[in-house]
Amino acid sequence: MASQARSKARPPLHEFDLIRALQQRHGRGGRSIIQGIGDDAAIVIPPRGQWSLLTTDLLTEGIHFDLKTATLADIGYRATAANLSDIAAMGGRPCYLLAALAVPRRGTSRQVHQLYQGMMAACRPAKVKLIGGDTSASDHGWFVSLTVVGEVPTGRALQRHGARIGDRIYVTGTLGDSLAGLRLLQESSSARQLRPAMLSASHRRFLIQRHLRPIARVREGQWLRIHRYATSAIDLSDGLSGDLRHICEASHVGAEIDPAAIPLSSACRAFANAHRFDPTALALKGGEDYELLFTGSARKHAALERAARKAGMRIACIGTITSARSGIQTIGPNGKRRPLPITSYEHFQ
Amino acid sequence: MASQARSKARPPLHEFDLIRALQQRHGRGGRSIIQGIGDDAAIVIPPRGQWSLLTTDLLTEGIHFDLKTATLADIGYRATAANLSDIAAMGGRPCYLLAALAVPRRGTSRQVHQLYQGMMAACRPAKVKLIGGDTSASDHGWFVSLTVVGEVPTGRALQRHGARIGDRIYVTGTLGDSLAGLRLLQESSSARQLRPAMLSASHRRFLIQRHLRPIARVREGQWLRIHRYATSAIDLSDGLSGDLRHICEASHVGAEIDPAAIPLSSACRAFANAHRFDPTALALKGGEDYELLFTGSARKHAALERAARKAGMRIACIGTITSARSGIQTIGPNGKRRPLPITSYEHFQ
Repeated sequence: MASQARSKARPPLHEFDLIRALQQRHGRGGRSIIQGIGDDAAIVIPPRGQWSLLTTDLLTEGIHFDLKTATLADIGYRATAANLSDIAAMGGRPCYLLAALAVPRRGTSRQVHQLYQGMMAACRPAKVKLIGGDTSASDHGWFVSLTVVGEVPTGRALQRHGARIGDRIYVTGTLGDSLAGLRLLQESSSARQLRPAMLSASHRRFLIQRHLRPIARVREGQWLRIHRYATSAIDLSDGLSGDLRHICEASHVGAEIDPAAIPLSSACRAFANAHRFDPTALALKGGEDYELLFTGSARKHAALERAARKAGMRIACIGTITSARSGIQTIGPNGKRRPLPITSYEHFQ
Repeated sequence: MASQARSKARPPLHEFDLIRALQQRHGRGGRSIIQGIGDDAAIVIPPRGQWSLLTTDLLTEGIHFDLKTATLADIGYRATAANLSDIAAMGGRPCYLLAALAVPRRGTSRQVHQLYQGMMAACRPAKVKLIGGDTSASDHGWFVSLTVVGEVPTGRALQRHGARIGDRIYVTGTLGDSLAGLRLLQESSSARQLRPAMLSASHRRFLIQRHLRPIARVREGQWLRIHRYATSAIDLSDGLSGDLRHICEASHVGAEIDPAAIPLSSACRAFANAHRFDPTALALKGGEDYELLFTGSARKHAALERAARKAGMRIACIGTITSARSGIQTIGPNGKRRPLPITSYEHFQ
């Protein structure tokens, strides 16, 4: 066994032992889990009066993350948040996680445990339970493929296809922070820092945290579903311009966005200022904010905004749904309309 | 867009277009599918009176497959069969597939479609529907991470922990064929063919097919569950010695195996003969046969074997469950007992 030759500093990765350790650390079940980690398949009791939601996301080293700018715990956290965010965008409650990992030969079981610690840190606030997975070797980098199972009351999922002409377009939180955080991490790893003095340490920390530890808007998604405010919803993983396009295509509508209305954090503004970037471009282009983009009837506009304020939820109206004919446009300060370019990140471009 | 610079011979991989094409080709839903490919998460109606089964498996290039010895369609087929086999081993009915792929930059959309064609070829006989996935770029090889959702009537899953002292140990089909097929593929790709004349073309084809296109024993698993013959079950993915150990550990028992009783195909015998291998060693060590290993009460032994013959199902009794104290042993032709070495394939060793 090659693993016996390794030093103690790099504990050997023994698949069966690893599964047993994961089961002991993270496999504590809930009442609906008949069998978690440790059999051919997990067994769960399906929810009554609910639809099941299923989503899967794959993160690959060198494409979605870089060990120079993130720890394995950060990567585990972010991969999990991305999946929880998909359930949030459907107005659902995430319940179970399955994790398939490919670990490079240089990888240690300590690193695998760090990855799991990150995943569990993202799961804990949402009470999501780890019920299964697969751990394999990789000839190259790390691969993290997660599947999350959730539930939503029958007939009540927020889908992409419900936007109607005249609906208002909203986003939660602030946009562009994750991309700004990523740029900061890339700068420090390449020692090519641009005017760092112009950005305070707390703004730096905020933006980096927003990139490494994004918060899936699970509470917000459920709130929108319960109060029936949203006619359609999606999470911002590809960037505003790309994700808005998904809603428009699925709903057969167009959209008009006011870039000046896009909510920006003061940290993002300060970052853009220090780098002489347009902060709005960061917000339009930047993916992985994991905020929710949703539409709501214009009639309920005032009620929605009042209720959101009362619930302590930050939402901003950034535009209006139009007819499919006019496509997706931005309105400039002079009222001039321009087609919104697709600037979102596509992994194959 | 880099993709515009590519030649027509290598169609560009455009993620959104790819999703749309997959949705059109493979996304035809069933009555229980509210939303398949094309939203943040898939939505399905959970089954009544059933438990849900969930399993995930990750296959990586260079570890689980090699494009020198398998086409992408074969890889898609085999990855799917591995997951269906996990559901089969629980006595369940597989229902839905989610596919997460990482595609190297040299990969074409034609290759991605081939991979999906292989997956769908494995899904079709079991009526499994593709409901979601994720397609991403990879800096290195291909990664295929699949999740299958199945169902089994409440309280009726075949688990690993039900084996009792005195139970008989059975396997379906024949063992060792997949490893023999893999060796044949590796030999032809390295042009290091060992006495090929000693193996007929039909034996060769049979063994290679058993490796590239294994059949998940979905019908057999359900038959065992319906007739209540099995006290425990697992699928043979790691190899007999490793998988039997899983049953013994989960059930807190030991086992005695008669190597001479392990069912071997005539092709496997011919291969072993041509290579001067012990065919039983191939059967004990070889993983990925995706046959079922199960235990059944000694009382029902005759009834089970009669019923299996009647149903046209090939099963063989290969040993007996003993107490945990005696561990896992083989019985030689002279009646001598020896501990069974762990020779199964672990990806980290």
